[in-house]
Amino acid sequence: MTRVTVWNEFRHEKSDPEVAAIYPDGMHVTIAEALRARGIQTRTATLDEPEHGLTDAVLDETDVLIWWGHLAHEEVDDAIVERVQLRVLGGMGLVVLHSGHGSKLFRRLMGTTCNLKWRESTDTEVLWNVAPGHPITRGIDEHIIIDQEEMYGEYFEVPTPDVLVFISWFTGGEVFRSGACYVRGSGKIFYFRPGHETYPTYHHSAVQDVIANAARWAAPDYEVTQRFGNPGPLIPR
Amino acid sequence: MTRVTVWNEFRHEKSDPEVAAIYPDGMHVTIAEALRARGIQTRTATLDEPEHGLTDAVLDETDVLIWWGHLAHEEVDDAIVERVQLRVLGGMGLVVLHSGHGSKLFRRLMGTTCNLKWRESTDTEVLWNVAPGHPITRGIDEHIIIDQEEMYGEYFEVPTPDVLVFISWFTGGEVFRSGACYVRGSGKIFYFRPGHETYPTYHHSAVQDVIANAARWAAPDYEVTQRFGNPGPLIPR
Amino acid sequence: MTRVTVWNEFRHEKSDPEVAAIYPDGMHVTIAEALRARGIQTRTATLDEPEHGLTDAVLDETDVLIWWGHLAHEEVDDAIVERVQLRVLGGMGLVVLHSGHGSKLFRRLMGTTCNLKWRESTDTEVLWNVAPGHPITRGIDEHIIIDQEEMYGEYFEVPTPDVLVFISWFTGGEVFRSGACYVRGSGKIFYFRPGHETYPTYHHSAVQDVIANAARWAAPDYEVTQRFGNPGPLIPR
Amino acid sequence: MTRVTVWNEFRHEKSDPEVAAIYPDGMHVTIAEALRARGIQTRTATLDEPEHGLTDAVLDETDVLIWWGHLAHEEVDDAIVERVQLRVLGGMGLVVLHSGHGSKLFRRLMGTTCNLKWRESTDTEVLWNVAPGHPITRGIDEHIIIDQEEMYGEYFEVPTPDVLVFISWFTGGEVFRSGACYVRGSGKIFYFRPGHETYPTYHHSAVQDVIANAARWAAPDYEVTQRFGNPGPLIPR
Repeated sequence: MTRVTVWNEFRHEKSDPEVAAIYPDGMHVTIAEALRARGIQTRTATLDEPEHGLTDAVLDETDVLIWWGHLAHEEVDDAIVERVQLRVLGGMGLVVLHSGHGSKLFRRLMGTTCNLKWRESTDTEVLWNVAPGHPITRGIDEHIIIDQEEMYGEYFEVPTPDVLVFISWFTGGEVFRSGACYVRGSGKIFYFRPGHETYPTYHHSAVQDVIANAARWAAPDYEVTQRFGNPGPLIPR
Repeated sequence: MTRVTVWNEFRHEKSDPEVAAIYPDGMHVTIAEALRARGIQTRTATLDEPEHGLTDAVLDETDVLIWWGHLAHEEVDDAIVERVQLRVLGGMGLVVLHSGHGSKLFRRLMGTTCNLKWRESTDTEVLWNVAPGHPITRGIDEHIIIDQEEMYGEYFEVPTPDVLVFISWFTGGEVFRSGACYVRGSGKIFYFRPGHETYPTYHHSAVQDVIANAARWAAPDYEVTQRFGNPGPLIPR
Repeated sequence: MTRVTVWNEFRHEKSDPEVAAIYPDGMHVTIAEALRARGIQTRTATLDEPEHGLTDAVLDETDVLIWWGHLAHEEVDDAIVERVQLRVLGGMGLVVLHSGHGSKLFRRLMGTTCNLKWRESTDTEVLWNVAPGHPITRGIDEHIIIDQEEMYGEYFEVPTPDVLVFISWFTGGEVFRSGACYVRGSGKIFYFRPGHETYPTYHHSAVQDVIANAARWAAPDYEVTQRFGNPGPLIPR
Repeated sequence: MTRVTVWNEFRHEKSDPEVAAIYPDGMHVTIAEALRARGIQTRTATLDEPEHGLTDAVLDETDVLIWWGHLAHEEVDDAIVERVQLRVLGGMGLVVLHSGHGSKLFRRLMGTTCNLKWRESTDTEVLWNVAPGHPITRGIDEHIIIDQEEMYGEYFEVPTPDVLVFISWFTGGEVFRSGACYVRGSGKIFYFRPGHETYPTYHHSAVQDVIANAARWAAPDYEVTQRFGNPGPLIPR
């Protein structure tokens, strides 16, 4: 059974009443409840816990980590970032949400700046499914409409996705590669764009479905032990 | 020097006064003139010529073939399609325009139906450059705006592009992977979406720039001779 | 539960005593038994049955088709090839084995010649797992050694795989991309190199494991219905 | 005209007489001479120079950086690594040679450990060209044979290459993805495996040809200025 840890920096909800009204217990709790309602075993962790809540003991019991951060990217400890990065390369799944594009963790795994364009306004977002049949779009149909969301626009400086799952349309004329799969080491990574803190996006049923599908997809299929090093010849001559 | 042959089925222009008003000599002539103005040696060929104008002699002098077809896909002779397909695999570049997505040639090279959604209306198209630095976007900036064009929408049933160069936005809420690079054998293929016959798209300077860039990109860098078959061991044991 | 149909042209086994000694009931029966032993519901079909055993009724009950052909590629009816191709694009999985690289079906789906180098000799083959963590390499470890096999060598004229799973080493100095995943439409395709008819390769336990893993991987995750055509605007202006 | 800077940590050559006998002036000088002989404007830089020889002034005049390091990866200053990484994302080409797979720079750009297997022995290496027609294999034919080289074996923990150009065969039974293209931001990166310090590999004419081809390929085609940030709507509603 997939075991998910939802990580949230959990700062906007404490300082901004507009956000607190939408997510009174934090976005991580809303997301965790949505996953549990879909049968996924889920815990949460936040920035201000010791080791940001990402101890080795927690990670040992985590198949997939979901990551939301924004204001406090630079407060995340480099040692924890490296710990999580190595877990991902070793097989732990990772789902990076929205402004998590700018996190140390995602930038380290991508090797690029992960910069983009953005606008907080009244744009509608339409996410088009360009990977029908992919596990992440199970039950999703052709598109998801989010009445109002922050705009993210291209150019998005990331490596070419291994699989592009969603492309977003915004009212203002922009497009964005908003669902992108990567394999790094034996770990699977999914970046999913929606989820600005001032909109009720994580209460949207199809958005919740995508996150649940992504968690199931990103979970390791089996345990992998890499053997690097200095072997003798395999085939004697 | 890159030698281009612009192929057009050249039927709409003869039967539809609206199209003839925009392209009195045919779209192929408009495109060829744009390429010549950009320093590319260009000839044309059309469906109703013997062998559709694509004799071995013509193909021997063609580095890149540009293809526009729509009404008469099924009139293109299978033997000519196979001839051109093998030329592409052997290194000849191919630029497929707009409704050429449904041509026998493109479908054979892709292996899929190449189906999509479409709407002839008053949509504006914005093509976003998602491959800055790529030879095909030289001089193109962040986007190209086409005031009115036919809409093409996802899902577009093609293989995942080797490089995705443009994503289009349409007024009606749709997106489309509208510039897509493929390598097949030692040949380079570029699919470029714009160019419905009832709009003056091939008179648009940036569209012309893209087609010229694509022709230069798709031209073979050097001649390749594949050796398949039944060799002895390379390294004796 | 995954339902597999193993298709074999079933000619070598009838005409060549050396092959019949290894596969007295045909390679398809050996492969089918290996799949059944791994819990996969499996039937078989062969070239000389009506409609090559690939009627719509059979395909309706097939999640994944496994294909072995060699001598008689040209005897496969074009209408059946197109029928199967459309099934794959619609979601049916396909596992193409060994000399099936030259089948009409695989060449149509790839769009290339699928040519390669080959040598029937005493080469050992080592297949290296370059996709640890991928469902197809579950339980496979770092490599598979096949004491004797036909050599296949690069250049292999296929599109760049979406995921490269195995690379083969041969005694004579050659290498080959011998496990390759493709997505076409909503269907998954796996090409797997080993299996020359004069070697007992399909009795090799790890080879059987790979084919079983590939069948499970290639099975559709859910049913997909594409809607192409001519819609009105999604977002009114 | 392409301007190349060849960077070498330049330590083995000073401390190991065996290496000094092969590369009396350092590997960077041998490589630089090979590039100059092929018409490429080339300078060199080494670890022990101020700022490792990679000042902004030098990088301003560098289209492509070639990187060889091994013993002293950890001595490379993090600030210089970040400076070079940002240059690459901005368009500067990068060719990483052999043990440079373990450099801070390559690991940061890839996001993975870049670990592998290795053996210093008497293996012969055959590099197979799996990208015929690609600019990097111009003039290279089907394969390159290096009589003796260090073995590098899979699994090589890097992201899936955008284009795989070479696969290596080694006597001992191993294979390796030994020529791999990546695009990151608007920069092109090529990893090329051969070049252990105790073998005369950089005196090998075909190896020199590949490095020269790679330098020409990796050079930016034109200057790119990304505009990220916070724009207003492109298309007013």
